[in-house]
Amino acid sequence: MPMNPHHDGSALYVPDQTPALGDTVPVLVRVPAGTDVERVHLRTTPDGEPTFAEATVDRRTDTEVWYRADVQVRNPVTGYRFLLTGRRGRRWLNAAGVVGHDVPDAGDFRLVTYDPPPAWIRDAVVYQVFPDRFARSAAAADRVAPDWAIPCDWDTPVIGRGPETPRQFYGGDLDGVAAHLDHLDRLGVNTLYLTPIFPARSNHRYDAASFDRIDPLLGGDAALARLADAVHARGWRLIGDITSNHTGDAHEWFRAALAGSAAERELYYFDATGDYESWNGVRSLPKLNWGSAELRRRFATAEDSLLRRWLRPPYGLDGWRVDVANMTGRRGADAYTHEVAALLRRAAVQTRPDVLVVGEHGHDHTGDLDRDGWHGTMNYVGFTDPVLSWLKDGDAEVPNFLGTPGGVLRRSAPEVLATMDAYRSMVSWRSYTHSWQLLGSHDSARVRTVVGDAARQEVAAGLLATMPGTPMVFAGDELGLTGTNGEGSRTPMPWHRPESWDRGTLAAYRSLLALRRAEPALRHGGLRRVHVDPDTLVFLREAPTGAVLVLARRAPGVPVRLTGLPAATSVYGGADDLRPDATGTLVLPADGPTFQVWRLAG
Amino acid sequence: MPMNPHHDGSALYVPDQTPALGDTVPVLVRVPAGTDVERVHLRTTPDGEPTFAEATVDRRTDTEVWYRADVQVRNPVTGYRFLLTGRRGRRWLNAAGVVGHDVPDAGDFRLVTYDPPPAWIRDAVVYQVFPDRFARSAAAADRVAPDWAIPCDWDTPVIGRGPETPRQFYGGDLDGVAAHLDHLDRLGVNTLYLTPIFPARSNHRYDAASFDRIDPLLGGDAALARLADAVHARGWRLIGDITSNHTGDAHEWFRAALAGSAAERELYYFDATGDYESWNGVRSLPKLNWGSAELRRRFATAEDSLLRRWLRPPYGLDGWRVDVANMTGRRGADAYTHEVAALLRRAAVQTRPDVLVVGEHGHDHTGDLDRDGWHGTMNYVGFTDPVLSWLKDGDAEVPNFLGTPGGVLRRSAPEVLATMDAYRSMVSWRSYTHSWQLLGSHDSARVRTVVGDAARQEVAAGLLATMPGTPMVFAGDELGLTGTNGEGSRTPMPWHRPESWDRGTLAAYRSLLALRRAEPALRHGGLRRVHVDPDTLVFLREAPTGAVLVLARRAPGVPVRLTGLPAATSVYGGADDLRPDATGTLVLPADGPTFQVWRLAG
Repeated sequence: MPMNPHHDGSALYVPDQTPALGDTVPVLVRVPAGTDVERVHLRTTPDGEPTFAEATVDRRTDTEVWYRADVQVRNPVTGYRFLLTGRRGRRWLNAAGVVGHDVPDAGDFRLVTYDPPPAWIRDAVVYQVFPDRFARSAAAADRVAPDWAIPCDWDTPVIGRGPETPRQFYGGDLDGVAAHLDHLDRLGVNTLYLTPIFPARSNHRYDAASFDRIDPLLGGDAALARLADAVHARGWRLIGDITSNHTGDAHEWFRAALAGSAAERELYYFDATGDYESWNGVRSLPKLNWGSAELRRRFATAEDSLLRRWLRPPYGLDGWRVDVANMTGRRGADAYTHEVAALLRRAAVQTRPDVLVVGEHGHDHTGDLDRDGWHGTMNYVGFTDPVLSWLKDGDAEVPNFLGTPGGVLRRSAPEVLATMDAYRSMVSWRSYTHSWQLLGSHDSARVRTVVGDAARQEVAAGLLATMPGTPMVFAGDELGLTGTNGEGSRTPMPWHRPESWDRGTLAAYRSLLALRRAEPALRHGGLRRVHVDPDTLVFLREAPTGAVLVLARRAPGVPVRLTGLPAATSVYGGADDLRPDATGTLVLPADGPTFQVWRLAG
Repeated sequence: MPMNPHHDGSALYVPDQTPALGDTVPVLVRVPAGTDVERVHLRTTPDGEPTFAEATVDRRTDTEVWYRADVQVRNPVTGYRFLLTGRRGRRWLNAAGVVGHDVPDAGDFRLVTYDPPPAWIRDAVVYQVFPDRFARSAAAADRVAPDWAIPCDWDTPVIGRGPETPRQFYGGDLDGVAAHLDHLDRLGVNTLYLTPIFPARSNHRYDAASFDRIDPLLGGDAALARLADAVHARGWRLIGDITSNHTGDAHEWFRAALAGSAAERELYYFDATGDYESWNGVRSLPKLNWGSAELRRRFATAEDSLLRRWLRPPYGLDGWRVDVANMTGRRGADAYTHEVAALLRRAAVQTRPDVLVVGEHGHDHTGDLDRDGWHGTMNYVGFTDPVLSWLKDGDAEVPNFLGTPGGVLRRSAPEVLATMDAYRSMVSWRSYTHSWQLLGSHDSARVRTVVGDAARQEVAAGLLATMPGTPMVFAGDELGLTGTNGEGSRTPMPWHRPESWDRGTLAAYRSLLALRRAEPALRHGGLRRVHVDPDTLVFLREAPTGAVLVLARRAPGVPVRLTGLPAATSVYGGADDLRPDATGTLVLPADGPTFQVWRLAG
């Protein structure tokens, strides 16, 4: 694979990472020697009209020419791309890569002038906890299971699908979480994300009965305050989970609506017959109507709105993950989604400027980012699904969270990269890198079940730790837990059975997350691919402070040979250091599955 | 090229062409025998959430299986695609075609429930007239040229670029247009589109000095009424051209604004220094500020707004082409574009329900269609540029209207189709087919100059007449006129020099447009490609009423062999009728450049 001209939104190419409206900012393109490029033009579309400006040579090295051009940041989202002209013709370089034919602007690089996400998320590693299944404190034993619940011992097998699925009650609580922060510390995470903790009538609590208090079964408001204190004492962050699309049918608002209160009826979609709209037809999850000014007030804009209240002391959540953001505000002709995202972000930022607001998208998020709403999303489509498809156990039959008939399909690396590129190229670098990349969650099969063994899980975890985006680890993945679908993966943490832990997988996660902490290029660098074949993916993460080379293999193959790179020191995976041979070639190991990382010299 | 599974938005696949919100409409996919497809699923995203439903077999023929699925039209724009599962894996079929990896929803097929464009445009062929250059009536001789003008004889060479370019005044007028409607009739057009006819200080009149009256130099209001009568008497339609992005600096509004009138100052973008925003920095074209309620009133919503007034008798324009729609309402953080488009369409439709509102986009229009605004656009990027790139004279150096450095580049057919598909796949079939496809306009080099000879212009005109979309002919193209850039192509029509007309080209245009009238499939059919190589493009236009086969070649090559098709009768181009040979193969002619059309039997 010859090196291609390259640009992305990272600091090597876009030194000004927080452009403001009216700024003129330089952008750079690197063109490897021997590429058929004689001139480079910048194309922008200020106020909707294309305009071109020739780039100038910024510097030349033995192996590259760097071109530079100035982008006038004319609009809140300023698109740009490059025209590469050579002896053999003309090509575009946009966020999808180098393309030989004309393409719409949707794949243009983007500068975004909306206030950036809080700085802390750039270095965050998120750990997702499903509270009913994480850990019980001593107090849990004294609590009486509610009427809807089927009390379970910690060792009761999780039922992945069936009427009992949402009712299995294991009784994990917030003090239980607080008691295991050392585990998180050793793992190397620094941000705790809790799925819902409001009272509800299910173990997942996405059917909130109130937004005004923390579920007493979790320890109540005081337990949240204790957990927040403990998290913040470590310098970490705590993220909550809010359902903006629906409430539970036991919610105070919905009960009042059913009782005939006009103020609450307008929060939902009731029709003339008294029937109401609900999430995917699930009657216990009545859908919220964002056409309601009262809903906007209660949810977001009022000084004591639910969104704002929990961001303040003594709870001090550092952000919200917004559930079903993809459906929020969408219903028939109603299209409030972007308004709602902006409203929630604005209210949250007014409450605390360093807040993070991440919208859940189970599928295509590209139309909903790069606005003044969600800082990022959960990147299932552009990371989870392609990675799992590549590393999938050939024999496993596992559903994907998208509901695609046939479930997770085994794909080759070029197909997987095509998918990643398709989604990545339609959002800004900022939105891409500030989205959560995950190998699974409470809504998907466990990575271990999909990939089938520890070796391939290590490759998956390696990509999680080394690709752009905020890594999110679903609690238990680091122990090699299994689960064949979303509900089935809500496995209680086997604290009491340490002999069941996959110590090798845990060690790999720890080392990989430590590596990410140690290498700024893994957190803030660009992404440049240098080799792909069906079983192999090799890429560089490059920052002004240094660069690393990453090799991911799902199977053994032939050695990958790279030219134009300096010597490199192994920093993960145990392979030999790399030294250019007499022809200047680095030869990478051919075994697999394997995951290797080297730090480049210089 | 093996036949692929196929779907598009035409009636063979979407029998209900005007779906309404809440409807359930069937959609069909044809799967050629021998394709690796065992199951077909429909994927839709109601309210933003993906859902799948298995398609059923609608019917089987000797050569195909037709699958059928029901789409619930849940949202004003309802996206859908198909999942094709076979022994060798899983692929998507979306508007871009069959794709083996996951892709965002931007390329999904789309059903649109906004009121459709008026029915008449489906059968329209538009003829564009630049009034200063089309024809002079007897009255023109008596008019005094205005102070800004450089009076020109009809034979004066047009200056394509320079200070005199906008000032060359040839004196064509509306009665001159009316006098030549027989030419349009013989050519086969039925819709006349006039570039601006308001008073101005340039020959192009895109710098309107008023929207309240027709330029007296064109004959004034009465001449427009006479022309409208003459056009409508033939059962034709008449389209005007309105500048929504800017006025001229001589405009009454702008003069009042400069004089200090607050009511008019708010219509523009004045800064504290008295400076003002203008189109691409051209001071004579001050930009309109759509944040102004007063502008919205004067332009659109008032009962006697300029937009509405000219749609009423005695003028009765049948629609507007909206100039610089791509920039209208866009300026820095201002993003009124979609609001303005909706506002103009609503005001126009309220005035006359059968009105057409087409927005000019000189480049990527995909983000601005499929809303409640423009019915369509001028498809430069998805038709003009790719067709011209394919047929370009190898030696010619001609600018493209996009300003791309290097101008029009010669491309092979696969590259050209990739471009067409990239744009087509991001809008609905409705928007695609209701956009104007053109080989050039007053803003581009003439097709003849780009392609270099009559043979390749015939191929271009063939594609114009046989591809989906509303054909638009720029006056003079049918006579083989030349012009090396937009301004240079504003050539006076050589009525008085019939010996200069390219009679062969005129005959080709007439025959091709007659063919389009005669074959409903060319106006309303789907588009299915059956062969492509660098020099050759073969496609089918198929409708419930019949189908035609089209061969376009820019150069001679090897015969294209097609299987699975019936016999076919030549209806354009003079080639032999096609009969399947003993193996069931149709063998197409190999000469070129050529353009051939056959009607399929059955």
